[in-house]
Amino acid sequence: MNQSHSSTLNDELDGDTLHEECGVFGVLGHPDGATLTALGLHALQHRGQEAAGIVTFDGKQFHMEKRMGLVGDHYTDPATLAKLPGFISIGHTRYSTTGEVALRNVQPLFAELEVGGIAVAHNGNFTNGLTMRRMLIADGAIFQATSDTEVVLHLIARSKQATSSDRFIDAIRQMEGGYSMLAMTRTKLIAARDPIGIRPLVMGELDGKPIFCSETCALDIIGAKYIRDVENGEVIICEIQSDGSITIDSRKADQPKPERLCLFEYVYFARPDSVVGGRSVYTARKNMGINLAKEAPVDADVVVPVPDGGTPAALGFAQASGIPFEYGIIRNHYVGRTFIEPTQQIRAFGVKLKHSANRAMIEGKRVVLVDDSIVRGTTSLKIVQMIRDAGAREVHIRVASPMIYFPDFYGIDTPDADKLLANQYSSLQAMCDYIGADSLEFLSIDGLYRAVGGASRDAANPQFTDHYFTGDYPTRLLDNDSTSNVRKLAVMASNG
Amino acid sequence: MNQSHSSTLNDELDGDTLHEECGVFGVLGHPDGATLTALGLHALQHRGQEAAGIVTFDGKQFHMEKRMGLVGDHYTDPATLAKLPGFISIGHTRYSTTGEVALRNVQPLFAELEVGGIAVAHNGNFTNGLTMRRMLIADGAIFQATSDTEVVLHLIARSKQATSSDRFIDAIRQMEGGYSMLAMTRTKLIAARDPIGIRPLVMGELDGKPIFCSETCALDIIGAKYIRDVENGEVIICEIQSDGSITIDSRKADQPKPERLCLFEYVYFARPDSVVGGRSVYTARKNMGINLAKEAPVDADVVVPVPDGGTPAALGFAQASGIPFEYGIIRNHYVGRTFIEPTQQIRAFGVKLKHSANRAMIEGKRVVLVDDSIVRGTTSLKIVQMIRDAGAREVHIRVASPMIYFPDFYGIDTPDADKLLANQYSSLQAMCDYIGADSLEFLSIDGLYRAVGGASRDAANPQFTDHYFTGDYPTRLLDNDSTSNVRKLAVMASNG
Amino acid sequence: MNQSHSSTLNDELDGDTLHEECGVFGVLGHPDGATLTALGLHALQHRGQEAAGIVTFDGKQFHMEKRMGLVGDHYTDPATLAKLPGFISIGHTRYSTTGEVALRNVQPLFAELEVGGIAVAHNGNFTNGLTMRRMLIADGAIFQATSDTEVVLHLIARSKQATSSDRFIDAIRQMEGGYSMLAMTRTKLIAARDPIGIRPLVMGELDGKPIFCSETCALDIIGAKYIRDVENGEVIICEIQSDGSITIDSRKADQPKPERLCLFEYVYFARPDSVVGGRSVYTARKNMGINLAKEAPVDADVVVPVPDGGTPAALGFAQASGIPFEYGIIRNHYVGRTFIEPTQQIRAFGVKLKHSANRAMIEGKRVVLVDDSIVRGTTSLKIVQMIRDAGAREVHIRVASPMIYFPDFYGIDTPDADKLLANQYSSLQAMCDYIGADSLEFLSIDGLYRAVGGASRDAANPQFTDHYFTGDYPTRLLDNDSTSNVRKLAVMASNG
Amino acid sequence: MNQSHSSTLNDELDGDTLHEECGVFGVLGHPDGATLTALGLHALQHRGQEAAGIVTFDGKQFHMEKRMGLVGDHYTDPATLAKLPGFISIGHTRYSTTGEVALRNVQPLFAELEVGGIAVAHNGNFTNGLTMRRMLIADGAIFQATSDTEVVLHLIARSKQATSSDRFIDAIRQMEGGYSMLAMTRTKLIAARDPIGIRPLVMGELDGKPIFCSETCALDIIGAKYIRDVENGEVIICEIQSDGSITIDSRKADQPKPERLCLFEYVYFARPDSVVGGRSVYTARKNMGINLAKEAPVDADVVVPVPDGGTPAALGFAQASGIPFEYGIIRNHYVGRTFIEPTQQIRAFGVKLKHSANRAMIEGKRVVLVDDSIVRGTTSLKIVQMIRDAGAREVHIRVASPMIYFPDFYGIDTPDADKLLANQYSSLQAMCDYIGADSLEFLSIDGLYRAVGGASRDAANPQFTDHYFTGDYPTRLLDNDSTSNVRKLAVMASNG
Repeated sequence: MNQSHSSTLNDELDGDTLHEECGVFGVLGHPDGATLTALGLHALQHRGQEAAGIVTFDGKQFHMEKRMGLVGDHYTDPATLAKLPGFISIGHTRYSTTGEVALRNVQPLFAELEVGGIAVAHNGNFTNGLTMRRMLIADGAIFQATSDTEVVLHLIARSKQATSSDRFIDAIRQMEGGYSMLAMTRTKLIAARDPIGIRPLVMGELDGKPIFCSETCALDIIGAKYIRDVENGEVIICEIQSDGSITIDSRKADQPKPERLCLFEYVYFARPDSVVGGRSVYTARKNMGINLAKEAPVDADVVVPVPDGGTPAALGFAQASGIPFEYGIIRNHYVGRTFIEPTQQIRAFGVKLKHSANRAMIEGKRVVLVDDSIVRGTTSLKIVQMIRDAGAREVHIRVASPMIYFPDFYGIDTPDADKLLANQYSSLQAMCDYIGADSLEFLSIDGLYRAVGGASRDAANPQFTDHYFTGDYPTRLLDNDSTSNVRKLAVMASNG
Repeated sequence: MNQSHSSTLNDELDGDTLHEECGVFGVLGHPDGATLTALGLHALQHRGQEAAGIVTFDGKQFHMEKRMGLVGDHYTDPATLAKLPGFISIGHTRYSTTGEVALRNVQPLFAELEVGGIAVAHNGNFTNGLTMRRMLIADGAIFQATSDTEVVLHLIARSKQATSSDRFIDAIRQMEGGYSMLAMTRTKLIAARDPIGIRPLVMGELDGKPIFCSETCALDIIGAKYIRDVENGEVIICEIQSDGSITIDSRKADQPKPERLCLFEYVYFARPDSVVGGRSVYTARKNMGINLAKEAPVDADVVVPVPDGGTPAALGFAQASGIPFEYGIIRNHYVGRTFIEPTQQIRAFGVKLKHSANRAMIEGKRVVLVDDSIVRGTTSLKIVQMIRDAGAREVHIRVASPMIYFPDFYGIDTPDADKLLANQYSSLQAMCDYIGADSLEFLSIDGLYRAVGGASRDAANPQFTDHYFTGDYPTRLLDNDSTSNVRKLAVMASNG
Repeated sequence: MNQSHSSTLNDELDGDTLHEECGVFGVLGHPDGATLTALGLHALQHRGQEAAGIVTFDGKQFHMEKRMGLVGDHYTDPATLAKLPGFISIGHTRYSTTGEVALRNVQPLFAELEVGGIAVAHNGNFTNGLTMRRMLIADGAIFQATSDTEVVLHLIARSKQATSSDRFIDAIRQMEGGYSMLAMTRTKLIAARDPIGIRPLVMGELDGKPIFCSETCALDIIGAKYIRDVENGEVIICEIQSDGSITIDSRKADQPKPERLCLFEYVYFARPDSVVGGRSVYTARKNMGINLAKEAPVDADVVVPVPDGGTPAALGFAQASGIPFEYGIIRNHYVGRTFIEPTQQIRAFGVKLKHSANRAMIEGKRVVLVDDSIVRGTTSLKIVQMIRDAGAREVHIRVASPMIYFPDFYGIDTPDADKLLANQYSSLQAMCDYIGADSLEFLSIDGLYRAVGGASRDAANPQFTDHYFTGDYPTRLLDNDSTSNVRKLAVMASNG
Repeated sequence: MNQSHSSTLNDELDGDTLHEECGVFGVLGHPDGATLTALGLHALQHRGQEAAGIVTFDGKQFHMEKRMGLVGDHYTDPATLAKLPGFISIGHTRYSTTGEVALRNVQPLFAELEVGGIAVAHNGNFTNGLTMRRMLIADGAIFQATSDTEVVLHLIARSKQATSSDRFIDAIRQMEGGYSMLAMTRTKLIAARDPIGIRPLVMGELDGKPIFCSETCALDIIGAKYIRDVENGEVIICEIQSDGSITIDSRKADQPKPERLCLFEYVYFARPDSVVGGRSVYTARKNMGINLAKEAPVDADVVVPVPDGGTPAALGFAQASGIPFEYGIIRNHYVGRTFIEPTQQIRAFGVKLKHSANRAMIEGKRVVLVDDSIVRGTTSLKIVQMIRDAGAREVHIRVASPMIYFPDFYGIDTPDADKLLANQYSSLQAMCDYIGADSLEFLSIDGLYRAVGGASRDAANPQFTDHYFTGDYPTRLLDNDSTSNVRKLAVMASNG
């Protein structure tokens, strides 16, 4: 009970949206490896706030630090960075999924192999992770944590290939799903993206040294230059030579498939200043608002963004509709970290802990609320109420993405399908009634495709991953039927 | 050295603006005293993030909890709230000024008097605090902390008046400066505002119980009704009677003066959704942008707010000028708490730790940056550089308040006068050159007055407190010449 | 309930004996003031383990650090000592009495006076502390904590004397009770002992610099030389002159009384290697055992000390009786710090958490257990049971001090009178039956006097303070009737 | 430098003796599994104070908690015990060896096998641990920590045997060295001792439920009955059946060897109240003192034990020699936990932080200091100096064990051979001169054998493990030549 209540509160405070699970960053050959990685992870903090880890290699020894909490709370501290000397570094920032919150689940993971140490970090999810884990346990492998990354580590350790990079490729070729993965050895930085490129991964360069990261914003913060996206199915192996020069080797998949980036990167996950798949995320979001204004116009006095996700779309909506854009909802930036299990009295204030209505812009007005997406609808309900309490004459909701019907298996934390608003009510009107709005409209799937990529959806060969809207999963789902067994293996509760 | 460097970083991360020192909240007669106070302080968190304290009285005993950090990090925790039972409660949230950061400086302060206990909390500053402190020490008073609030406590303890409320009035009538003050005894909640009402203080009501707080946003979060502003020079004494009823008694100053609210509440301090002195802060800020667009127009492609303070003014500027409003600067919400003493490498990234340029909206454009105010100019310099690095063709700065020349003595933390940009350069052009912009303009003092109150400044009887712009201090400054002696008395360094 | 249960456990773990409240240490003129003070307090740790504080003066500024816990847990840390530069230093270590455990109660206390700062620390208790506190509050004094030391500070602050040392003397001459007190100003170190010298205080010297401390063991640890005991009623004022030389001025009481040191210092409090009042504590304790063997002989196989207090007396008993001395009870040195509120199951193991029977020395034997004192008898009961469970044929208890009937008011933490074993049972046999021993005998008051001072008790002019045994209080007890009011004033519960 | 200095200090504070690495405890079938385990580990705390871990199984799930620090600091807390429900439980307490101090090295270790979970804890050391680790890494095993216990876990996971107990036996039969090991599965508690029984392990019983622990003192604390020692080379498998009954199955080694318990258990490690190999440890130690008095008599006034290890031997020495036994050295029980890196000034006080001379028993006397063993001699040097400073006329050292020449490889933390006093000086007289004593004598190896077991050493078939004195290692030392390679594999520095 308690748990579920406070989870409802967190939904409200987080805006009842979906969550990405991770961000990754790596650099090879730069003397400030850990500092650059810390800065990169800080820029990727929106992809995961639970914990962060960094591994470095200084020519003699690997160093690893893992911390619960924000990158900026720990990795800017001189004492922490002093423990991470080295010119090869990879880092990982992690979203707080339900279940075990333990340092041993924090990436990167490290293994000492016969051929030397290797550290691995990834963003995404394997659709055959459980299947592989079972196979490995049957073969005598010992797992320390519940992360699928450990599966990859075991496959590397058991690979019969000679070199660490060949072992890495051998391992990931056995995995299915959506992932962007970084690995490092004593001389190499390796980047890999899944066969259809569901999760993003870009390559950059600073002072001639290669960098890989989830989004371009992690290049911008350190003043690094964007080179190109890692291609879907590609493995890039950078190696520092004894003379300090760096070789870069790209291995492509044997039978390349077309890229299908996850649409939710554009809808919500990626930072607006990032360029994903060559497209400005901010521009894509503004286009969603513009298309939404065309698809679902409404006669109103003011366009109000639901902070923060809805802001670019609201601006697009306002510009396209000619209705003034105003901050009708003010966000409290000082939401503390211990709202996890507040008292019942505190919990009752729900969404007001983070948002408040700006009465001067609401009272007596017909308000269009623009949000990026609706998952459960629980927060929308509270926000509509808050806007009405502030004196709005009408409240219209416009959502800059389609209705969500299906769970994700590629690294997005989705609630159970029956908790999704779209699955709880059979009609748009019923949803609108539940939320208490005067009208409710979603952007069409084609409207979204055009906002992001310019063209409508090609049903035969969709340009993007979009199963949460359409049910069209881009890969098979090997573990899916046996998902319930996951817990059966994770029998150990521990703080260790 | 180190200290000054990291202070520069903090200026950048905080936006190089001025800082208020406190927020206060009090409630009488409500069974959830501490919970309401915690929520109210959470809504007032923008007025001070260093520490917060709450005192309650439960009919038998006073309870006090003080914590470093955010309200939401501590006071939503059931264990903490359980230590604060009671139906009378006052709370205080405090800004981190330089010098001692110690729990013993955190308000409210408490004293056991012959007539019973009393707790006091205040926002503002006394201009004769040091003078009174010296007088009291000469008379055998012992001070535990460096806060001026303790001076008031001693005056109350030494007052010859019979009741706690008369003692309180006796005490504050001896103090000069700008303050909004709350006090509580075993039966009373007392609110007081300085003779000209420099700092704000409003009265509200929830379930028929009186509430006092710095801004209306603290009423909104708990669903309380706004009653009226506490008047300048007024003391309101609310007392709970044995039958549970509450009497409210107002004492006005003998020779009332006109109110002169601090203009910086409108320019930067107050939350945009608050109503201060009967005026919407958000609307005032938009008006500043509108007036600024009229006073200092510029031919440009895009209006970009400097987050977060400049946003409403930027919106006003855009609406008045017809130039599109775009988010050209993206704010990183996840700035950690340990940036205080980062490594030199981290420090070098300065403003980029918090802000990044949204290249898609900047590249090739003529950009108007709208900011709320400029204090030292150090951050403006970095932001202009960041915008230029992102490819802007021109960068024009428009500041929605006048130039700051003079220090404050009423509760605003101002840098030394010679650190103020306006005092470092003799001409607007020199400032513009320093910052590296193509043009730089400030809102006029009349433009600001009109934006807030409708009328231009009445030089004979200014409607607001505005000395930081004009040098016209609204009270005498008794301690001012001897400011350097403050440290002489604060001889004790301690963590206790 | 819970509270009382865990308090019973703590009695068992601490050996159900009385507890001293404090130890003090001060040094003037030595560059390593804080280090010497930390070492001295470490040697005095047996006098109080709850918290410790140190104040230093470095020529410009006072520095104060206070910490909960052991001296060696905090004050050996370079970071802590670095915050305490200075050549004048006083320190205090404090026993955990019931009630508030808060840093603000930790001594030394400091006040900024008109004539400069002063810090005060004391061991002992005032019998008119409450009376004076009430008088001061009526006169407008503000108290921050519940310690009587603050009363002295207020009296100093309000004194009309010109110098800090005269103010100090003025203040303590108004106080009654048993105390050893240290004070320091910007140039002085002042030591004072109550009119009859109930609590000990010695003067030593290191490198020609004066040192004062509760016991000689604090001189031994730093290699300082013992000079003499501070006399009862004496105030010694040491002052450092501008040329670095030190003047020492002694002020005696006008009408000197004979010294009456507290007997419990010899029975239990002082460390066995200390010399108190010119007498070796260890030798006194051995003598107690020797006298006990003569007064209450028993036919037995083995003499077993109840650790740790009973060990010297047991050795004396064994040597005098010729019965072999053996370690029949083994002490677990690793009793953790969180036994305060253990689970009911853990609590049930009581005394076994700290002590275990050494079966090889017990089984089949007639055992004499020698303990230093019996307060409630609750631990004795458990120990007898433990010894019987280990197979003892007979268990005889010999206590190296008389029965305790009366509470203390001079700094010893005594339980309520009706909790004392001697007041719960009307006969020695009844006590013996309760405890479950085969015989139980206490040392006579004369036997104790002879063990410590050589002569029997002079009933007309007792040589020592001994009211807990005899009811003969050496001073009037002004606060005593109103003790229950103490809590009425301490109305504030706080962690601040 | 710093490191080595503070390590010298720790030697002094710990008495410059050898250290055991661990204690283990396990119970099957009792509802209070974790509570009993916590109590048992508390009684075994002398075997390791760095960290402790407990694993339980509650019928559905395994639970694991690990904590740095003392058992009594964590595991008596209701919140911690509440996380450890279950009727099968094993626990481990660990000595702080040099190198990584990390939770991931704290035992028990757990692995999820195909046949279900297994947890393992052990006391001792494998002489082929590194060899096996290399073999396993070559075969694709991933190691998370540096503990050899993980090697056993991998061997269990990879075993082809059907049941968990057969897999366990399969695994330990591949290991060489000295160990006492506990394992638990969902139904079993398994105990094993190495082929010659170097480390102790006893079996007890409480309420009919089997218990295994390192020493009998862990049975005594919970009131459990001692059943028998686990035999050398024996594996005992206890299994709880579906009806709650417990089966006990003993597997003996195929070719049993004679037991050779480690003599240091008698000399120093085991608690004096424990019975090891059927012999009272306290009696053995007293016998060492008695034999020492016969072998190396001295004309003196007082016998003083070096606390705490030397006390029983000193008592034996005093009884045999007729010289009075006195506490000439007082131990400070309050040595804090942060002496690890004290300031140079604090460090200079060395042994005085823990010990002080009791001048009254020393001054003008001829003193015999009795110690249990001498390793480096660094502390002895300081103690002799301290005794001389207290005025001793003569200082004679008598050591209740032979000289230590050789390192251990069975779980005792020994310094490098060239740091051992016996290897630094070629003659007894040279050692005596170094230490500064008037005479120095060690117990003979035969004297030690007779004190413990009654008979002299049988050179052909020594009754005990005694290589540190004799160089006669009881097993081959497979890893020994490659010891330096250990660090090469442990390339990862981490706090994770």
